[in-house]
Amino acid sequence: MVNKRDLSPASFIGVAKKGLISFGSGQPDLPPPDAVYQILPEYRDFKYGLIQGLTTLRVALAKQYPGSGKDDFVVTNGASEALDLSLRVLASLNTKLPKKVLLAQPYYYSYPHLIQFSGLEPVYLQTTRGRIDLDDFRDKAKQCCAVLINSPSNPTGRVESVETLKEIEKITAKLGIYVLSDEVYKELIYVRDNYLLSGPHVVTINSFSKTYAMCGFRIGYLWSRDKTFVERVIAMKTHSSMNTNILGQEMALEATKVPRQFIAGQLKIWEQRRDLLYQGLFELGLDVWKPEGAFYMLPKIDRPRDFVWDMYTKHKVITYLGDWFGAPGSVRFSYALDVEKIDEGMRRLREYLSGRK
Amino acid sequence: MVNKRDLSPASFIGVAKKGLISFGSGQPDLPPPDAVYQILPEYRDFKYGLIQGLTTLRVALAKQYPGSGKDDFVVTNGASEALDLSLRVLASLNTKLPKKVLLAQPYYYSYPHLIQFSGLEPVYLQTTRGRIDLDDFRDKAKQCCAVLINSPSNPTGRVESVETLKEIEKITAKLGIYVLSDEVYKELIYVRDNYLLSGPHVVTINSFSKTYAMCGFRIGYLWSRDKTFVERVIAMKTHSSMNTNILGQEMALEATKVPRQFIAGQLKIWEQRRDLLYQGLFELGLDVWKPEGAFYMLPKIDRPRDFVWDMYTKHKVITYLGDWFGAPGSVRFSYALDVEKIDEGMRRLREYLSGRK
Repeated sequence: MVNKRDLSPASFIGVAKKGLISFGSGQPDLPPPDAVYQILPEYRDFKYGLIQGLTTLRVALAKQYPGSGKDDFVVTNGASEALDLSLRVLASLNTKLPKKVLLAQPYYYSYPHLIQFSGLEPVYLQTTRGRIDLDDFRDKAKQCCAVLINSPSNPTGRVESVETLKEIEKITAKLGIYVLSDEVYKELIYVRDNYLLSGPHVVTINSFSKTYAMCGFRIGYLWSRDKTFVERVIAMKTHSSMNTNILGQEMALEATKVPRQFIAGQLKIWEQRRDLLYQGLFELGLDVWKPEGAFYMLPKIDRPRDFVWDMYTKHKVITYLGDWFGAPGSVRFSYALDVEKIDEGMRRLREYLSGRK
Repeated sequence: MVNKRDLSPASFIGVAKKGLISFGSGQPDLPPPDAVYQILPEYRDFKYGLIQGLTTLRVALAKQYPGSGKDDFVVTNGASEALDLSLRVLASLNTKLPKKVLLAQPYYYSYPHLIQFSGLEPVYLQTTRGRIDLDDFRDKAKQCCAVLINSPSNPTGRVESVETLKEIEKITAKLGIYVLSDEVYKELIYVRDNYLLSGPHVVTINSFSKTYAMCGFRIGYLWSRDKTFVERVIAMKTHSSMNTNILGQEMALEATKVPRQFIAGQLKIWEQRRDLLYQGLFELGLDVWKPEGAFYMLPKIDRPRDFVWDMYTKHKVITYLGDWFGAPGSVRFSYALDVEKIDEGMRRLREYLSGRK
């Protein structure tokens, strides 16, 4: 499956080798709260659910988003489908705005694909050490019908400043263009509380995958105050996938009832891992930013394709090639693995780098 | 939600009124086999699964499709997503064939929407009392890059003859165009065994929704011997929704282990209901075809919009307006409800029709 010319993140999914250490996968290794499984033994439903999503789940979500109601949400097959539907709806709008979407580079590797699948064209923002350049933003946003924001960012771990985010709200409102705000890492911020981008032109995308470690169940959602936009998303989903898995939604509902302590506890674990990996990469003299959120680092690495390939084939360590994230010259490390494994991975990394010509 | 100008099938989803009789919904009312719930109490997985689908499930499916292997399948969010992904992949192919898809009218109401969402254009086949006209097929297939076949058909209940299906295989093979064969009702045929359309140019679409009453869990799949096509579907799903709900897939795997007797038992129930509803509509003098498969009838009805609206608002009976299925002048009746309810629904129908001017 994995070959050196490709090295796509998807090609590593499901790879199993004895003694493998993976800094690859973008999913929590610790399980969801027990509560999500407690409803399983008695569960007996089987019929179609509402396309928009389970009402009780949307009511619970509305409590988390100030000024919102259950009708502002659509529950989807992960944040992926929320984004896919949003982009397809954007592409179908009868507007004179250019069919282009602005996004920061480096980016989550699915973004350009999804934008293109929907018939739109990606326009890339310059970033300075992972941060959006507002001058470049002002300039390029004019050529677009929407901007896609991802703070905290996969793969950079950057959290944009509140000032930058407020400025983005203003610029886009003035231009009359949409903001798609992918906030799936909003509960995984080490430096401050999340700043929820908002406004009638904002579509917020989130999921239960990262916060509650429910990746495999594929429960995501979007939130928007634009009624017409929400209706169009529902209309499209009616045909493209119908309701999201009914049992997965009930499990997500249970997750919303779990005390906030669970999230705080997880955050501490992530922070400890971040510090360990950051220290290790820093001591190796690598050029790397200390993550402010999410669970990724993006160090600069010479000959990164050789690095990823050799680390995998010779040292049984998975890392992801930066090229896939619009970051040539870099390699993405996820720290979704326990500290013992991070230590062992770092040991192998040191071994490899010390022998590298 | 329900209003007379719209009367879309989706607007009836989730409608609950005391004493309501629904000939609307296209989902089994009887539960899935018990076995699918038996794995729930011990279930503890949570991580991403393979985008292509659970290996054990694909191995089980391969046993049902002669000459196939697990790599020929992609598990999807219901047949809907299988169809959506197939159409989007078709639209993205670099081919000189016209960007048009041929389908029979009347059609399942999502088809034209999905075709258009993907950037393709629907071309409609004439049917004679619900059957495909092969001369028309030969003529129009030349203008298309794919044909979409749905036998047994929703909403007509028609099963095309084996001769017709074989001819369709031949014509399309000669033209070098794809066949998307939606066979979700393949286990619900009253007149013969299913004829599985096949060939390297055929993409078969199926699901666990109808056969195993698992609609709400959204487990569908596609099967194709065209490796490149399958790879393109996986590549797209990698970004648009990732893996299908892991627990739903495990439940579907359990369904594949249930003895065929379950399906035979269900078929008997469907046949009894069909006979009852057909007899009732026939005795009322309505022009209706006796269904050979699936669980729908499509009688001709004068002023069908008034009929659907009045039956719903005055007699608490849900039926679906034929216009949504490309069948103006008709109304769709599903018989996914027990015989007592069918009897009561027929009583109300007689009452209404006897008082109709």
